[in-house]
Amino acid sequence: MRPIITLTTDFGVRDSYVGVMKGVILGICPTAHLIDITHAITPQNVVEAAFVVQSFVPYFPVGTVHLVVVDPGVGSERRAVALTTPRARYVGPDNGVFGPVWQDARSRWAPAEVRAVELKVPRFWRPQISTTFHGRDIFAPVAAHLAAGIALREFGPALDTLEVAAIPEPVREPDGSLRGSIIYVDHFGNCISNIAVAHLDWLGPHRELDVTVGDHSVGTIQRTYADVAPGTPLALPGSNGRLELALRNGHAGQMLGVTAGATVRVRRID
Amino acid sequence: MRPIITLTTDFGVRDSYVGVMKGVILGICPTAHLIDITHAITPQNVVEAAFVVQSFVPYFPVGTVHLVVVDPGVGSERRAVALTTPRARYVGPDNGVFGPVWQDARSRWAPAEVRAVELKVPRFWRPQISTTFHGRDIFAPVAAHLAAGIALREFGPALDTLEVAAIPEPVREPDGSLRGSIIYVDHFGNCISNIAVAHLDWLGPHRELDVTVGDHSVGTIQRTYADVAPGTPLALPGSNGRLELALRNGHAGQMLGVTAGATVRVRRID
Amino acid sequence: MRPIITLTTDFGVRDSYVGVMKGVILGICPTAHLIDITHAITPQNVVEAAFVVQSFVPYFPVGTVHLVVVDPGVGSERRAVALTTPRARYVGPDNGVFGPVWQDARSRWAPAEVRAVELKVPRFWRPQISTTFHGRDIFAPVAAHLAAGIALREFGPALDTLEVAAIPEPVREPDGSLRGSIIYVDHFGNCISNIAVAHLDWLGPHRELDVTVGDHSVGTIQRTYADVAPGTPLALPGSNGRLELALRNGHAGQMLGVTAGATVRVRRID
Repeated sequence: MRPIITLTTDFGVRDSYVGVMKGVILGICPTAHLIDITHAITPQNVVEAAFVVQSFVPYFPVGTVHLVVVDPGVGSERRAVALTTPRARYVGPDNGVFGPVWQDARSRWAPAEVRAVELKVPRFWRPQISTTFHGRDIFAPVAAHLAAGIALREFGPALDTLEVAAIPEPVREPDGSLRGSIIYVDHFGNCISNIAVAHLDWLGPHRELDVTVGDHSVGTIQRTYADVAPGTPLALPGSNGRLELALRNGHAGQMLGVTAGATVRVRRID
Repeated sequence: MRPIITLTTDFGVRDSYVGVMKGVILGICPTAHLIDITHAITPQNVVEAAFVVQSFVPYFPVGTVHLVVVDPGVGSERRAVALTTPRARYVGPDNGVFGPVWQDARSRWAPAEVRAVELKVPRFWRPQISTTFHGRDIFAPVAAHLAAGIALREFGPALDTLEVAAIPEPVREPDGSLRGSIIYVDHFGNCISNIAVAHLDWLGPHRELDVTVGDHSVGTIQRTYADVAPGTPLALPGSNGRLELALRNGHAGQMLGVTAGATVRVRRID
Repeated sequence: MRPIITLTTDFGVRDSYVGVMKGVILGICPTAHLIDITHAITPQNVVEAAFVVQSFVPYFPVGTVHLVVVDPGVGSERRAVALTTPRARYVGPDNGVFGPVWQDARSRWAPAEVRAVELKVPRFWRPQISTTFHGRDIFAPVAAHLAAGIALREFGPALDTLEVAAIPEPVREPDGSLRGSIIYVDHFGNCISNIAVAHLDWLGPHRELDVTVGDHSVGTIQRTYADVAPGTPLALPGSNGRLELALRNGHAGQMLGVTAGATVRVRRID
């Protein structure tokens, strides 16, 4: 079976940096199946990268190696890490990009099944290490060796904790309503919140829940885009299990002026 | 032989949606060779998607599975379909994106060789179906099962007709001239019309045919860019067999203010 | 072993042109492992393409086939070529895109090991050759046949010289300083110069070398981004062995108004 390695970076697609990492990987693990997730993470935005990583991991075959290089601290003292869970394997900087998947794995599985190491063994790296491109010199070769079958413990000493890039949690207000925020606006203009469907279920039936985003009241929670007229904003459970603000046949973010950080309120109709 | 699956969507390349579909496919058909065509179809533009699909299909090996997800009607009553022809296989929404390839296939081959089914058999889907992302939950898994060898008839009942997204046809005017329109402006600024080389051949030798796009007269039909001076607009038969408006070493669409929908006239010089 | 073919073009990622080339390749060489380097070369910018090509080639396995289609002269008399070195193989137009790798190879290896041919044998092309898309009709099929094992000499007659797209060399000024220029600004805003680390080493220890870009003095040469405060510009040896201008946690090109062509001066501090 060909091992799968996914790539998530903030490198953009104009330069040859992503291609260079792929060349390095194929030199070590020629059978690797390379899958680009995105190279358009906002430069150096670790929280956005952490959100994106947790969004796609559940859909890949068990054992997939996820290489994540959003690395504003390259050349400083931030650690380089690899981790494995019963679900997936990960390689990248220890700056929080793996926080959500790490926390989720720790809550699901026994400690012995969720392991991390600091990358400390240079024989798995390129011979020369630049100060500015560890994606090429450390992370890509380690991901390739991991995919090729090298055991996690070979790469360095075990770690007990990782840095966590906090995706903020919604809070319950004294009046019983839920206050969350928009954490990501996608290509279609869908505004994804930090409010999970489980949070909504605790509050009441969806048809009795009223949603406000910023200053815009968008009514009760709908089931799908086609439940409203074209050009109408709506709130609905998104495909990744979080409450989203959308606009049928349009870009909700632009029409309503909503960006990451906007407040979302959900309250039960009296 | 590894089966090829191409992907054409309006998802953009910033989010993880395309990666998620690839993860789903590889979980079902690990040997699939995944080829991105484009993820930059104008959001929800079915006619543009239909034009793009018919443009690349002839260049892929016979039997390639083409997954197309431009799906403004997701969650409504639009049907989900798969089709096979002696040339290729297709999976996506029945909203017209397959219109041109369906019509072309019906005109070339016997009805028994050009078959379509409505996707109705949930055992080939993901266990839970969202209302907003059938690309992940229905189309990607069906494309993977089709590539892995499941017969078309297994996916659901046969269909006799499909929706057609009409790429408009050029018309012959009373004065003998041909009136068509620009249907696509590409990355280089080449403005591709709905006038096929065959249409031109009926009208007369190319050197005797005069072309006007919008208000711009661009002279007789040339053979290649190098036939005119740099910075000069020209009309020529494009690489996909349609009359194009181009600008040597420049962007014709921007320079001449031409966009999709602009009128193109071809008349024989007296 | 699956042969690797990389693709570098100015086609953008919106149209189906890149997908079409991949379809053609897979029809000839179904085992090819296709790796996109970039399709965002500035349209028709041969010098930029030449810079990008030399930047990634050293990181790919020996024998990789690099397909480069930045081809403003398509349809004119420019030659179509393929070349092989002990390091890699190349297919594309003879307009200078292979200049740096050709010159580098000629300086490293014996003439018998660095060979080029003009593509003249139509049985390795598509049956019909358009005047505007040799990427699809000539270069992609030749790259596929080369990857599939056809010997270089089969494609056409040997060439002694290739066109060279000159990446300008820095010059030593009468006062002992070095004057170079910015040749590429990347996605992060790093401004890459034509001054190699070797040039700097001849001048003196990095901590004694003062750098000016345009009108901006950026101080002595640093080791990595973290050596300066966030928001501060710095000069440092980049990951590709050339002097770069960067901005910690920011976009140096935008902040300082630096674009390709800007003058870079390095002088030893008295």
